Amino acid sequence: MKTHKTDITVHWGDCDPAVIVYYPNYFHWFDASTVNLFAAVGLALQDLYLKENLAGIPILDAGAKFIRPSRFQDVITVESGVEYWRQSSFRIKHTIYNDSEVAVEGHEVRAWVRVDEDHPNGMRAFSVPNYVRERFDDS
Amino acid sequence: MKTHKTDITVHWGDCDPAVIVYYPNYFHWFDASTVNLFAAVGLALQDLYLKENLAGIPILDAGAKFIRPSRFQDVITVESGVEYWRQSSFRIKHTIYNDSEVAVEGHEVRAWVRVDEDHPNGMRAFSVPNYVRERFDDS
Amino acid sequence: MKTHKTDITVHWGDCDPAVIVYYPNYFHWFDASTVNLFAAVGLALQDLYLKENLAGIPILDAGAKFIRPSRFQDVITVESGVEYWRQSSFRIKHTIYNDSEVAVEGHEVRAWVRVDEDHPNGMRAFSVPNYVRERFDDS
Amino acid sequence: MKTHKTDITVHWGDCDPAVIVYYPNYFHWFDASTVNLFAAVGLALQDLYLKENLAGIPILDAGAKFIRPSRFQDVITVESGVEYWRQSSFRIKHTIYNDSEVAVEGHEVRAWVRVDEDHPNGMRAFSVPNYVRERFDDS
Repeated sequence: MKTHKTDITVHWGDCDPAVIVYYPNYFHWFDASTVNLFAAVGLALQDLYLKENLAGIPILDAGAKFIRPSRFQDVITVESGVEYWRQSSFRIKHTIYNDSEVAVEGHEVRAWVRVDEDHPNGMRAFSVPNYVRERFDDS
Repeated sequence: MKTHKTDITVHWGDCDPAVIVYYPNYFHWFDASTVNLFAAVGLALQDLYLKENLAGIPILDAGAKFIRPSRFQDVITVESGVEYWRQSSFRIKHTIYNDSEVAVEGHEVRAWVRVDEDHPNGMRAFSVPNYVRERFDDS
Repeated sequence: MKTHKTDITVHWGDCDPAVIVYYPNYFHWFDASTVNLFAAVGLALQDLYLKENLAGIPILDAGAKFIRPSRFQDVITVESGVEYWRQSSFRIKHTIYNDSEVAVEGHEVRAWVRVDEDHPNGMRAFSVPNYVRERFDDS
Repeated sequence: MKTHKTDITVHWGDCDPAVIVYYPNYFHWFDASTVNLFAAVGLALQDLYLKENLAGIPILDAGAKFIRPSRFQDVITVESGVEYWRQSSFRIKHTIYNDSEVAVEGHEVRAWVRVDEDHPNGMRAFSVPNYVRERFDDS
């Protein structure tokens, strides 16, 4: 699994009155890290919208275990990689490290959805192209 | 000035480690209150997009004075009204009350922007229609 | 399972460029709905902090399935109830309805943590008191 | 005026259905940039809490002019410096650049508040120490 790491400095406004990160923010960072992962393997999402008629990679499922809290000014690292591919969806594994300990373990399942004018919604889940999958393989 | 009031319960995640509302959230509530004000005078923004070819009411300027803090589970009230109209923009005044005291005083200046295919950006500031302005007058 | 419902109007700023709710916001609403559930059964969290020496109900695990998107100005309903109790933790089930259809199904697992000066962290997971559990039973 | 620059990559969830940054986020970045500015001149806020009995630097006033929008994946730069000092408050000027053009101009006015057990609120505005002010001077 090819992975990508993003460093994040926890900001004051990311924390709640318990003086720890307010947990929905971790999902914001998962989402950002997924975008960064695609960019890191040479597949900037904004390019795929044009090239692949991609309508988006909407979320189907997300979850996380919160193992230890993080605090104001902590620098945390989100490491993300595609755990597996299904026909028209894929699962991204996210691990957040704080001071080299695992702080959060989570995942996102996302669909591969293209614009499709023939479909009632104007969009439809499609098979993920092989060349896309291959970019995430370890060489 | 016709005004509209929206009640908001301050949530845990709206507060920061100082155990008071994290100030950017007040602008989120200003933004929501502007939408509610339009709806309250019978001009739902989602309808204006269609009827008036409105591209949006983008923000030009925003500001606030923070007079007293608000806390978890406080119920605050945002009162909003259009302070004045310019040719293609308008200023909304927002006052947030907490326990009948003024907690925040702020404003937003917004433009009236329509879709315009002849314009390089695809959109352009237009005069606010008279019937729109009149809806905000006190009768 | 005693449940509580909270209505939420989806605001402009809750949505992303796909013109649907940005998914981390659903966890923000889960968190708020948990607070509302406690209040609805007569156990305001801010009172429990004093009465029970509660340090908080920190999140251990959270997850959601996203079944259909919600959009600007949709009024959605979060219905929440305690699914089960463990010794010092509990699981809250959240269901979000949009137009009477299930839009999101999710959960939170939270710990019952009290201030404990004898403990190195200054706090420690404790058994949830029986009178607390009983408040969530159907009568 | 000594200034500090922070680069920010605009993320998907920072944007709204108009596909531009949702404006309250700019204030979140102002807040973060103020923290970074203090750290850059050698005055980490978390240290001042201890050393100076600082209770915080609460916001008194904030405002911004929005000159041009920013979009998903734009890398913007927040440049911040203390514009002037008053007895117990100070004004920070923030300029956000996008592609070397000014995108947002804003400010924050903040108070210097120390813990003071003799005061009814438990805290009180104090004079900003000279050594603090001097750190922000151009040498």
